[in-house]
Amino acid sequence: MNTLVTGIAELVTNDPSLGVVHDAALVVDDGSVAWVGSAGDAPPADRRTDLGGRTVVPGFVDSHAHLVFAGDRSAEFEARMSGARYDGGGIGTTVAATRAATDDELRGRLRALVAEMRAQGTTTVEVKSGYGLTVDDEARCLRLAAELTPETTFLGAHVVPAEYAGRADEYVALVTGPMLAACAPHARWVDVFCEPASAHAFDGDQARAVLAAGRDAGLGLRVHANQLSAGPGVQLAVELGAASADHCTHLTAADVDALAAGTTVATLLPGVEFSTRSPYPDARRLLEAGVTVALATDCNPGSCFTSSMAFCIALAVREMRMTPAEALWSATAGGAAALRRTDVGHLGVGARADLAVVDAPSFRHLAYRPGVPIVHALELAGRH
Amino acid sequence: MNTLVTGIAELVTNDPSLGVVHDAALVVDDGSVAWVGSAGDAPPADRRTDLGGRTVVPGFVDSHAHLVFAGDRSAEFEARMSGARYDGGGIGTTVAATRAATDDELRGRLRALVAEMRAQGTTTVEVKSGYGLTVDDEARCLRLAAELTPETTFLGAHVVPAEYAGRADEYVALVTGPMLAACAPHARWVDVFCEPASAHAFDGDQARAVLAAGRDAGLGLRVHANQLSAGPGVQLAVELGAASADHCTHLTAADVDALAAGTTVATLLPGVEFSTRSPYPDARRLLEAGVTVALATDCNPGSCFTSSMAFCIALAVREMRMTPAEALWSATAGGAAALRRTDVGHLGVGARADLAVVDAPSFRHLAYRPGVPIVHALELAGRH
Repeated sequence: MNTLVTGIAELVTNDPSLGVVHDAALVVDDGSVAWVGSAGDAPPADRRTDLGGRTVVPGFVDSHAHLVFAGDRSAEFEARMSGARYDGGGIGTTVAATRAATDDELRGRLRALVAEMRAQGTTTVEVKSGYGLTVDDEARCLRLAAELTPETTFLGAHVVPAEYAGRADEYVALVTGPMLAACAPHARWVDVFCEPASAHAFDGDQARAVLAAGRDAGLGLRVHANQLSAGPGVQLAVELGAASADHCTHLTAADVDALAAGTTVATLLPGVEFSTRSPYPDARRLLEAGVTVALATDCNPGSCFTSSMAFCIALAVREMRMTPAEALWSATAGGAAALRRTDVGHLGVGARADLAVVDAPSFRHLAYRPGVPIVHALELAGRH
Repeated sequence: MNTLVTGIAELVTNDPSLGVVHDAALVVDDGSVAWVGSAGDAPPADRRTDLGGRTVVPGFVDSHAHLVFAGDRSAEFEARMSGARYDGGGIGTTVAATRAATDDELRGRLRALVAEMRAQGTTTVEVKSGYGLTVDDEARCLRLAAELTPETTFLGAHVVPAEYAGRADEYVALVTGPMLAACAPHARWVDVFCEPASAHAFDGDQARAVLAAGRDAGLGLRVHANQLSAGPGVQLAVELGAASADHCTHLTAADVDALAAGTTVATLLPGVEFSTRSPYPDARRLLEAGVTVALATDCNPGSCFTSSMAFCIALAVREMRMTPAEALWSATAGGAAALRRTDVGHLGVGARADLAVVDAPSFRHLAYRPGVPIVHALELAGRH
């Protein structure tokens, strides 16, 4: 049973480049894209879905999110908007609530957030641990995440938990030893918050130890790099061949050169700068240097509690001077590159049939209509 | 038949001030609020609706929107984000498309936008004409708007149309004469784009003539004031007792003093500054001077095509340093003040039962979760 999708005023395939087709159609067979082209050339199919003149884009690939947690930090957000500084220290609040929560509480919140993302067009999401920070709590957070996505990331090295204050190296030994052993079976990736400027995060040597241990355990590498200062994170990520260096808010010329020469994607998270009232990353500098740029939400209860990739696209255009086309590519194909996936982030033949429908005549409306829920994932009968 | 609404973790009534009640309930009778209080004190009722621990706020009052138009200007938006300047000149594109559209085309777009707003928590919306700019087209735009809202505003003086280029005074004579006569039966308000800095808009004398004629025809007054420069609009609005001066992006000390001493609400439209990449109004200066501040979307196809009051709240907090409480008040009670309405914008006993439900434990999430569609208007059976 295949399905012909018609009534597509504008189709973005990302194949090749943005790959825009007007008055398009698309055939989905067994969960994959089987044919793409002009509506007039469409082949017959078993079923037909008409979108009534809307836009179709690849489902968003949100390659950076922290969705396994409990508790509410809206009061901390309010205080920060009144002038309190963000340094990552508030993560401890969420750690306490997460440790105290039952599996079902964590699972319920996680499922609700993934559903909320899907309702906003996100069809692939990476989910990190990092609010457990004990062997058992990190492992259970990853086990819960793996119920919903294959893109699970072990982030035991999110912050140094309070009980290890002043003993960061001891905590790193725990992370790289028994915690990694317990978590690796549930994770595809390992990540570390490399930020010497924060008393709560990890310096370059500690980050290297975490990444090396993760790699030895068979995990792919990702790095929280250069969020609060121009630290060693980006160059470490490139040196070790990490799939992505995330944040990239404070970069030196050497950082940009390293990214341009390497295979590491620069993942920008402008929702964080919005919600912490911080300066935005310099996306144009990266693009002009030839760096592959991804956009992601960083959805988390502390520094950025948006789940909307469309909002991140609007910020990328307004605040980072990306074009609507660049921003959409980075939110789809860019995210796929950051996860080293070739089956998502585009709608070429053979891709997963992860379609997002924009209720508008053009993908440009994703930036042109900020804050308006005009995009959702298309649910096709028989999808898997 | 009355209805008891329960399961309200947090209720904002705006009565008095923000009027927050935790673990609250509310009785709706014949479309009005009949009782408000703690859940434990709730009286019996004929029907019951349980919100499962969500937040209830007054439905948003969007006191500034341009929703009667045809055409698409997303390409102009894209060009502006790449550096083209906004001076109001692009309005002509929408005027041509609107004149060419049938009533049903205009009505379809208008209804879709009002429904989109309601789905995002807006229960009162003001709708302006201003894309017809002929006697017949302005009158028909207002007639269509009046099908959906009592808050209709005659904005024949939106820009000088191309066919009157260089003859602005002749166009003002048309606006204040036959156009006003044709439009007044369908309008509650008259408005003018007072902006000597734009070649397309109206200077102080022209604006005064439009407002005086509208007042003589029985209409209330509103002014597009001080958007692109510190012109005469704000002080003219206060002098003539206008309900609202809208934009207020460029203010002198004398403008702030005038607003503080008068009865005119300052309506801020931060979505415009977002979508035109312009500096934001100084909300704190106005609040500290004691000015009543409203927030509205300015939803329109040129300078700001958002319909989301929640997005405007998030911008107000991030960019204008309003607190989440101030921003919510301005988006509800402030909007009501800008429309001189006492029956909306609050949930005191006797108010219209215009309830917006926030899928979160606190109203703070409206700013804490930017871009996420967590708020919608509550549809109660028997509502009218």
